Amino acid sequence: MPLVIGVTKEFTPGERRVALVPDVAKKYQGLGAALLLQAGAGASAYYRDEDYGAAELVADASSVLKKADVVLQVQPLSMDDLNELKPGSVLVGLQQPWSSKERVELLRQKGITCFALELLPRISRAQSMDVLSSQAAVAGYECALIAADHSPKFFPMLTYAAGTIRPAKVLVIGAGVAGLQAIATAKRLGAMVSGYDVRPETKEQIESLGAKFVDTGVSAAGTGGYARELTDDEKRQQAEKLGKAIAECDALITTAAIPGKKAPVIVSAEMVARMKPGSVVVDMAAETGGNVAGTMAGEKTWVGETLIIGPTNIPSRMPVHASEMYAKNLFNFISPFIKDGALALDWEDEVLAGACLTHAGEVRHAGVKQALGL
Amino acid sequence: MPLVIGVTKEFTPGERRVALVPDVAKKYQGLGAALLLQAGAGASAYYRDEDYGAAELVADASSVLKKADVVLQVQPLSMDDLNELKPGSVLVGLQQPWSSKERVELLRQKGITCFALELLPRISRAQSMDVLSSQAAVAGYECALIAADHSPKFFPMLTYAAGTIRPAKVLVIGAGVAGLQAIATAKRLGAMVSGYDVRPETKEQIESLGAKFVDTGVSAAGTGGYARELTDDEKRQQAEKLGKAIAECDALITTAAIPGKKAPVIVSAEMVARMKPGSVVVDMAAETGGNVAGTMAGEKTWVGETLIIGPTNIPSRMPVHASEMYAKNLFNFISPFIKDGALALDWEDEVLAGACLTHAGEVRHAGVKQALGL
Repeated sequence: MPLVIGVTKEFTPGERRVALVPDVAKKYQGLGAALLLQAGAGASAYYRDEDYGAAELVADASSVLKKADVVLQVQPLSMDDLNELKPGSVLVGLQQPWSSKERVELLRQKGITCFALELLPRISRAQSMDVLSSQAAVAGYECALIAADHSPKFFPMLTYAAGTIRPAKVLVIGAGVAGLQAIATAKRLGAMVSGYDVRPETKEQIESLGAKFVDTGVSAAGTGGYARELTDDEKRQQAEKLGKAIAECDALITTAAIPGKKAPVIVSAEMVARMKPGSVVVDMAAETGGNVAGTMAGEKTWVGETLIIGPTNIPSRMPVHASEMYAKNLFNFISPFIKDGALALDWEDEVLAGACLTHAGEVRHAGVKQALGL
Repeated sequence: MPLVIGVTKEFTPGERRVALVPDVAKKYQGLGAALLLQAGAGASAYYRDEDYGAAELVADASSVLKKADVVLQVQPLSMDDLNELKPGSVLVGLQQPWSSKERVELLRQKGITCFALELLPRISRAQSMDVLSSQAAVAGYECALIAADHSPKFFPMLTYAAGTIRPAKVLVIGAGVAGLQAIATAKRLGAMVSGYDVRPETKEQIESLGAKFVDTGVSAAGTGGYARELTDDEKRQQAEKLGKAIAECDALITTAAIPGKKAPVIVSAEMVARMKPGSVVVDMAAETGGNVAGTMAGEKTWVGETLIIGPTNIPSRMPVHASEMYAKNLFNFISPFIKDGALALDWEDEVLAGACLTHAGEVRHAGVKQALGL
């Protein structure tokens, strides 16, 4: 019996991505694995069942969860769905490992080998598996489009027969993968773009995209590619310089996230109040509380004459390519351990071991174990 | 008593533009004109009353219409509002001159000197007054953004750690000002863009923007910068070649308009049916019937797995710059005849005379007169 890789429609409402796309399905099959697919699994991302090659199709998700040796998913499964998993099977995807003790406990009890891609060690070799980065690139691009689409102004300079329209000023806060992609996209559209990040090493990256770096004189170089939290004094100094840049921009895109924690509030109500009439804010961190005072997740909120947009599940707005990227990341993560239709996990592999949440009845990730008190 | 130029809030629901912006207001004042402004006239375009300089503010639109010597507007006034105008006054703006015999008759009866900017002669000198062009530039830009925002794919090519995402294919039909701006915007975003127009002279313009020209072998060079209508045989030949290009694209933007007439249906239901899953259509001609079978004005419609968007009043989505451009066009049209606070119209001026709908109790435009049977 070859290894059975199972994929269902995503269970989370509004989730349009799928963890496996036809091109990648063929690669798994090339490694001797068999595919078990819920019919219509890729439909919301416009992938058709018939394009998945020789995959076995079943009507219901439950049959997939019960039979598959390896289940690929995007969003975390619910308790009920986890309960359907075959004991000892492998689950790979985003798990929000810090969010639910109950779920981790169930995974442990059922002896599931669960890989949480949020836990992927941030080393060079793991970049091709990094779903957080690939999905952040999608989100950054989308946020720049959302800003442009909602702005009452042109982003590019425009010369027409009666004069010239000045380009819009766009400020991007947070220069991780998402922020840099937002900067690149706003630049492509022709806006005058500034970028800001507490990590001073981002200056060069921001400038390499043709944007201006907003220098507040505060540095918060952190570990693992993320910023550390700032002290109160640093926050005050940052706020003063940043407030000026915010008051001058036509569109503000904020992308500051700290993994597993509430997003830092960087833009205060006072800063929003000083923004121009008709300015637009896109807060990419809306789902984890927002970087901007007044952001409501999933809503468009007017604060005076400033529109604050708090989009949620942004990669799902672009499911074709977001799924393609996600599926390739997953393949790069798990495929080295598939050979001749069998799975052989190598626990000496630091990437594999580092991303493991539960295995053989144990919670394997020390950080999560401690954070959840397990 | 100096010439009084009046501006109200627009009456049409959803209209966010305003016919006068602060910078242009100062220019009229520089010519000795007095401004009479309805309070909040520019609010929906984020222009504040206090920025209009020494304009007299009144609370209601009626006071403006009753007192002003020259009324500037964007959308045509209703019968009731036209009735408020001071007899013999001047009205400048878009009038949809072919749409209502009743309205033209009322303008004539009241002795209004009405200029319809749709009637502006399409000569070089008039380009700086051409609101159709300036607003089309806004619309073309917006339609490209709408397409990108609704596409489930990246427009640009994207290289990330696990591979490369191919750029989206965008097809723009109709290469007037709007179409060319849509092409330019989709190009900026990094898409692979093709353009099509029945007028062969557009080939060079399309190619100059870095897009590919779709050659169907059919030419319909018309007069006044617009295309003539095609014969049935020509339509068949066009349809065959075009159908192939449409089936290959990820996003289709249609911008084909014939002034004063219903938009030509260029994209049939069969063509839509052959489009890719997840493809997006933005039909800029939705308001005048649409270029695409299945377009519903003001709606997003799914036809199979293709999303057809029929946006209406597109320039109003970008009211700051659309108003700025519109207001400058109007100023360029009427200001040559304002001197020392007085209006002296020169009927020898071919642009002024050509754009005149009614004057001194007469319908002045022969084409409109004939079309409406007046």
